[in-house]
Amino acid sequence: MSEPEAIKYRPISVRNALTEMKDLSEIMIDLAYSAALFHSQDLAEEVLELEERVDYLTYILHMNIMLAARDAEDAEQLVGIATVASATNEISDAAADIASLVLKNIGVHPIIREAFEKMEEHLIRARVNPKSILFQRKLKDLDLAARIGVDIIAIRKGKKWIIDPTDEEDIDGGDIIFARGAPLGVDKLYSLAIGLSDELDGEKSE
Amino acid sequence: MSEPEAIKYRPISVRNALTEMKDLSEIMIDLAYSAALFHSQDLAEEVLELEERVDYLTYILHMNIMLAARDAEDAEQLVGIATVASATNEISDAAADIASLVLKNIGVHPIIREAFEKMEEHLIRARVNPKSILFQRKLKDLDLAARIGVDIIAIRKGKKWIIDPTDEEDIDGGDIIFARGAPLGVDKLYSLAIGLSDELDGEKSE
Repeated sequence: MSEPEAIKYRPISVRNALTEMKDLSEIMIDLAYSAALFHSQDLAEEVLELEERVDYLTYILHMNIMLAARDAEDAEQLVGIATVASATNEISDAAADIASLVLKNIGVHPIIREAFEKMEEHLIRARVNPKSILFQRKLKDLDLAARIGVDIIAIRKGKKWIIDPTDEEDIDGGDIIFARGAPLGVDKLYSLAIGLSDELDGEKSE
Repeated sequence: MSEPEAIKYRPISVRNALTEMKDLSEIMIDLAYSAALFHSQDLAEEVLELEERVDYLTYILHMNIMLAARDAEDAEQLVGIATVASATNEISDAAADIASLVLKNIGVHPIIREAFEKMEEHLIRARVNPKSILFQRKLKDLDLAARIGVDIIAIRKGKKWIIDPTDEEDIDGGDIIFARGAPLGVDKLYSLAIGLSDELDGEKSE
């Protein structure tokens, strides 16, 4: 985890901050449950990184709505946004609590595993090798949903997260992809991403 | 909302409690966001009912794991479950905070609507009329996903919630169904449920 930084006011759009917080908090729950289920320290660390981002956005959003409120009517209008933002932040904190368990090496009790096992779909995290068949391909060309029943739910490019990427999104070397799908499909995608396999439904890399 | 009841210890299975809490907390977030987006008091009230249930399960689960811990090793094993249960409860609380906004008639600011509008799928809640074409039908016969692109994500029968119902589940009169899908599809399902329409892809009620 990076050093905590002083939070400074920035005039970012409240709408963008709230949308990002909502998207991040939703994916964080999925990642946290999967981290617990598969005892994945990598997934758990992603969750904690995301929690820092959500915390940051929460501060900035609160500052922005305070500055936007010039009279009681404004304040009444804006208090709903503050509440939704705080709720989103609570969800993110809850996900981080689960992730911390994994990082503290507190064993995942079989009961937790059983409670979460109903998840018929698995979730993986993989770093894309520049030699991978996925490298510099658009999601629409890969058509992973139809071919192997797997959905890329997020791509992290360095510090930048793309949640629910569109079909036009490219995959680059070093990107971290997060995908969900049937166990066989996600195993297949993992092999493709790290460059262990280059067969995607007959398609081969040159 | 019902009167608060004294919580008494009951020997229910920790696994069942945790599974139910996880399932409920996930659907609560969806319901709460939809309640805010469509300013639906009905959805908001469902969220608060569910929050009471999750609170109850949280207490019972904590009592059960305390009683299960007979030595330090047990306690170490069980602390993970307590943490996951608390996190699930926090998620449920966050959903309830959003629902309370709606019930307090605090206006949903356009920014919240914009942040949530990305949800391409809509969520509806409908009480099934005994005259509805859905009455006493199994989900697999209705085949709503293929016919109108809609997925029934939960059915409430009185106080009993069935989350992610299987294909074998029956719909009875008075059941509350929660469904997600394309806007046109959920509107269609709503009309079918309340008995306003009886045409499901050519199929007609007698």
